[in-house]
Amino acid sequence: MSTKKRPVPSSDKLDAIRALVGDKGVFEGADAAAFLSEWRGRWPGEASLIVAPASTEEVAAVVKYCNENDIAITPQGGNTGLVGGQIPFGDEILLSLKRMRKIRAIEPLNNTMTVDAGVTLAEAQEAAKQAGRLFPLSIGSEGTCQIGGVISTNAGGVNVLRYGNTRDLVLGLEAVTPSGDIWRGLKRLRKDNTGYDLKQLLIGGEGTLGIVTGAVLKLFPVPAEKITICAGLKSAEDAVRLLSLAQGATGGMTSSFELMARLCIDLVLKHIPQTRDPLSEQYPWYVLAEFSSGQKSGLRETVETMLGDALEQGLIADAVIAENETHAHDFWRIRHSISEAINGEGLGARHDVSVATSDIPAFLEKADAAVLNLSPGARFASFGHIGDGNVHYDILGPEGSSADVLEPVRPQIESAVYDVIGAFSGSISAEHGVGRHRRDTLAKRKSAVELEMMRAIKRALDPKGIMNPGKML
Amino acid sequence: MSTKKRPVPSSDKLDAIRALVGDKGVFEGADAAAFLSEWRGRWPGEASLIVAPASTEEVAAVVKYCNENDIAITPQGGNTGLVGGQIPFGDEILLSLKRMRKIRAIEPLNNTMTVDAGVTLAEAQEAAKQAGRLFPLSIGSEGTCQIGGVISTNAGGVNVLRYGNTRDLVLGLEAVTPSGDIWRGLKRLRKDNTGYDLKQLLIGGEGTLGIVTGAVLKLFPVPAEKITICAGLKSAEDAVRLLSLAQGATGGMTSSFELMARLCIDLVLKHIPQTRDPLSEQYPWYVLAEFSSGQKSGLRETVETMLGDALEQGLIADAVIAENETHAHDFWRIRHSISEAINGEGLGARHDVSVATSDIPAFLEKADAAVLNLSPGARFASFGHIGDGNVHYDILGPEGSSADVLEPVRPQIESAVYDVIGAFSGSISAEHGVGRHRRDTLAKRKSAVELEMMRAIKRALDPKGIMNPGKML
Repeated sequence: MSTKKRPVPSSDKLDAIRALVGDKGVFEGADAAAFLSEWRGRWPGEASLIVAPASTEEVAAVVKYCNENDIAITPQGGNTGLVGGQIPFGDEILLSLKRMRKIRAIEPLNNTMTVDAGVTLAEAQEAAKQAGRLFPLSIGSEGTCQIGGVISTNAGGVNVLRYGNTRDLVLGLEAVTPSGDIWRGLKRLRKDNTGYDLKQLLIGGEGTLGIVTGAVLKLFPVPAEKITICAGLKSAEDAVRLLSLAQGATGGMTSSFELMARLCIDLVLKHIPQTRDPLSEQYPWYVLAEFSSGQKSGLRETVETMLGDALEQGLIADAVIAENETHAHDFWRIRHSISEAINGEGLGARHDVSVATSDIPAFLEKADAAVLNLSPGARFASFGHIGDGNVHYDILGPEGSSADVLEPVRPQIESAVYDVIGAFSGSISAEHGVGRHRRDTLAKRKSAVELEMMRAIKRALDPKGIMNPGKML
Repeated sequence: MSTKKRPVPSSDKLDAIRALVGDKGVFEGADAAAFLSEWRGRWPGEASLIVAPASTEEVAAVVKYCNENDIAITPQGGNTGLVGGQIPFGDEILLSLKRMRKIRAIEPLNNTMTVDAGVTLAEAQEAAKQAGRLFPLSIGSEGTCQIGGVISTNAGGVNVLRYGNTRDLVLGLEAVTPSGDIWRGLKRLRKDNTGYDLKQLLIGGEGTLGIVTGAVLKLFPVPAEKITICAGLKSAEDAVRLLSLAQGATGGMTSSFELMARLCIDLVLKHIPQTRDPLSEQYPWYVLAEFSSGQKSGLRETVETMLGDALEQGLIADAVIAENETHAHDFWRIRHSISEAINGEGLGARHDVSVATSDIPAFLEKADAAVLNLSPGARFASFGHIGDGNVHYDILGPEGSSADVLEPVRPQIESAVYDVIGAFSGSISAEHGVGRHRRDTLAKRKSAVELEMMRAIKRALDPKGIMNPGKML
């Protein structure tokens, strides 16, 4: 629920807001549905008005009016968020950035690109490519999600190991503050020590401290050589050691390092057509790794030598280097189909958690035990970005059980998993954020000191609490 | 001057603070001098008491007492700061972290290290090395500066191009808040989206929002091959193009890329014994670059090919690859001696600024013209981390003039340079911070919106204004 229950704004006030954005900026009736439905059907939304300003100045005018009239705002990007942060409760207006979609500038010699918040991630990737550069952020929803949303949720994805989270890829921001001022922070600088790094509050701020309207993004050289491998292993511990070996042997060139339990492969083969086992034998664990280099040659030999060492040290049982793009694509298709395959098997209990990479084996052992205690026979489809310590810790009922068998114990399972995460000083939301979904859990599990610092900042920057109330805090 | 003039604390209150840290934690008489003298003799300091707590708990006890009794605190690390942020005005107590110097944990498999704030940068580097890892931060004062200070100033240095600023190298923080609470944020996670990233406020916060007592630092594989080159160029513009070529050819492996005007070389040869011209001919500009790779071979060939391409494209006139460590050391000695050589030549007017890398040539042209307008015959010893857009823009009087010839026009020169920086949306303090030195300049040149956001955060987290008053804000 929203922190502070507000009256629905009067129709006079809503008309005043309509006037600020013009007819093209108002979405009503049938046009409203797409903004209010969460893509998996969770958290159906309500809003007193839906507007999509065409410019930063229009965003500022709307926010200023709302601040003066105590009207709450839920900002929305591509509406692909996984925790309901983009869905209003009813007394807010919904402010979409979808009409702000200009690539403002690309400067290859500075390795930067300046874009409107409403540009989709795929459009940003493509613009970088056209300029002979790489924008490395890559997530499942990239065709739809928008840069403003990606920034507000600090999106992660499969290239974090080498290029970092969204936070690491943003040099400057333009944003509208809760009072309706425009903060023109579109710096294209790699070094700037002149005060608090304010953009960091908006990155991952889930729209609770202001609305991102534009950003300067870091670009990188396009890799000249890319090698994809799939390896079979006997334990998650060996996967952690393989990662260390791979990073040592290739320096900064290990760009993805994904772990998958055998059950993930089984479910993909069962539920996803035209997939095949990546290796000739079956193993308890699989690693899908990608290496990329600016150099035109030498990488394959380096990776081959590394895999030879890994075999010799007993870290892997088998490994295949993708022979071509299609072969690499087949490996990645398995990885990217896991979520859908798990959906096909049952509702399950799913978690997006992180621990120190070196703690992953111990976390899995302790968490598995805690879950089996609550649900004997439960099956573990653990997978994730092990190079970032990020495990998608997904649990299914016993083989052959009904799809919703875990529903009655799901809250207890979640609580038990988060207890184990707490013992490892891990995160209960590694990538997906807090939003509505994990707000109560956060309030329970975050330290009082940290919560109070967060609340003090929220009160200081948004004293009326109009920005995305009921989310995160 | 301090923002709020406080009375010097009563001797009863000072005794109460002494009791919190014990005799070993109090520095008086002759022992006090080292804390109060800025290392270049600027900003002589005064403090009502100097304490060095032995633990986070002791830091918290002192801060809590100070908060309750409205006593201001200047935190101090290795006292190597360049903007006087570490030097108290007189009514504060000085709180040194020097007695907190434990390496708390090193986890090579997680590529992390947890350290006390008082560990020196060199000790942190050495501890990483002993564990077979690299902590890449490297700055001139590394033998003395402490991790807490390095974090509070977001130090940069020569490896930022590849590894980032201090901000990019910190995964977690432990800090004492202005109210004396301990924030236990020593996360060892690469992904954590559970609320505002509070550590970012303390990183580069110059001790105005709390005292860093411990940190989790990122470690990296030790490079297996390192290549150092020196190239002669006809223009700064060619240097920017060479950087782009080098980054494209070597991917992420360009770790340093330093630009030096010929005058820098001349001054080093004149003032620093046992140095020699790096190339056989003289050129208007020089680039000193370093490439490092985790792979055991192949890098030299890649760099050679890249330099061949650069020669062919006319970007460089000559280049030498260091034949061994001694040769590379000679190149770096020139770079690291520039500051001292400039000191030997005269007082000058020195600036630590940044612009977009691609704007460096235009910035130099416009700034040079503005300076020559104020001081005909001025000489430009520009150098810096061009890969980060960071120029140490240092100006000397005409050849043969007295050492202090620029002193009367120094404020006007600074103002003119900062005007040009403003026109390029650059930073007036790329690396060194604000402290006392640039506080007034910041207040004049930062946007009202941004200043107000900073002040709101300061008021929210430190309502009594006890943390390092008179610095930054």
